[in-house]
Amino acid sequence: MRISELAVVTGVPVATMKYYVREGLLPPGRAITPRLSEYDEEHVRRLRLLRALREVGGVPVTRLRALVGALEVGQSPMSLLEQTANALAPVAPTPGPGRADAREMVGQVLDEAGWRVRPDGPDRENLAAALEVLAEFTGGPVPGQAIAPYVRAADDLARHEIGHLDPGRGDAALLQQMVVGQVLFGQVLGALRRLAEEHHSGERFGHPVGGSQGDAG
Amino acid sequence: MRISELAVVTGVPVATMKYYVREGLLPPGRAITPRLSEYDEEHVRRLRLLRALREVGGVPVTRLRALVGALEVGQSPMSLLEQTANALAPVAPTPGPGRADAREMVGQVLDEAGWRVRPDGPDRENLAAALEVLAEFTGGPVPGQAIAPYVRAADDLARHEIGHLDPGRGDAALLQQMVVGQVLFGQVLGALRRLAEEHHSGERFGHPVGGSQGDAG
Repeated sequence: MRISELAVVTGVPVATMKYYVREGLLPPGRAITPRLSEYDEEHVRRLRLLRALREVGGVPVTRLRALVGALEVGQSPMSLLEQTANALAPVAPTPGPGRADAREMVGQVLDEAGWRVRPDGPDRENLAAALEVLAEFTGGPVPGQAIAPYVRAADDLARHEIGHLDPGRGDAALLQQMVVGQVLFGQVLGALRRLAEEHHSGERFGHPVGGSQGDAG
Repeated sequence: MRISELAVVTGVPVATMKYYVREGLLPPGRAITPRLSEYDEEHVRRLRLLRALREVGGVPVTRLRALVGALEVGQSPMSLLEQTANALAPVAPTPGPGRADAREMVGQVLDEAGWRVRPDGPDRENLAAALEVLAEFTGGPVPGQAIAPYVRAADDLARHEIGHLDPGRGDAALLQQMVVGQVLFGQVLGALRRLAEEHHSGERFGHPVGGSQGDAG
């Protein structure tokens, strides 16, 4: 297909595709004439992946390159999942005075959850950073029971997600399922949680007058 | 206290504080001499809030200004929660060919959940964008039962969060609790989910040899 058709099929603008080709994220089309190239299903698949990771997941281009490279080399499911987690994890802020205590609490949370995870993964530090800042606000360490509902939710969802992966369609398909699931269902969960908070706040404090009934803007 | 002491107490570098003052996010200190200013508990509280929202929550500075303005004016809990949700919601990618179907599905999901939310909030569109891209990957609309576990988790967590807010400490404190809870527990949940996925993937596909036992890096 032509590049204009590829844009219609994938919803990715032509200018963005050209940018992906320049960045080495999308293979160039097969040149038919000096001004015309042909694209195929492989390009459709890659563009859908890039769109999911970058536009929906917010993964920066520098990290996309590492992920796409890993997909092409065909790494083990675990090492790819770790790379996805690394690409998605925000960069933890500079430690404040409470970081050491918060790190200790992360160790306790992981022990109690029974999760076996890398000692050097970025999400340990991200969790510690969030707990540190929470402790500053509440004027003391975050109690374990305040974290417990989140641990349970994360455990239930992750078990569900990983349990539904289908390794029967080959390694490449499995890797893509893992990456896409981690990114897209992360966005689904974030959006749903904010929507649920809006609803439950309205139930408790009163919905804004007319605000739920179509005042566009 | 001096600015250097404020930096130690809050963990925010002096250069960052000066930036916040220039951006109108932090009130300047009380000038004692032309080269020396005095800072107080109000500055500590504001810096903790900014640190939570920006460094941990990833809220960009342009949106912080709107949030800080809303806190100062003292808006209703609902309108502040909506502004926080707006500030935190990512910008939905350009609609592709499946967006209309995905929007319809979002309406169904919200109806089934029984959530009353703004018709024009950004998270409806974010959810639609994620569902659109998921449908592209799976080759058809995302089945309702694939979304259901996320809806349940979001509903449980939001009910827990909003139920634990303490309106007895005044409006300003309540608003801050809502903002901080939405941002920080969102980060806690995201980090925990990635950690849980790592654990459950390891359980299913095999933990990397030695990878969970201290190979620092």
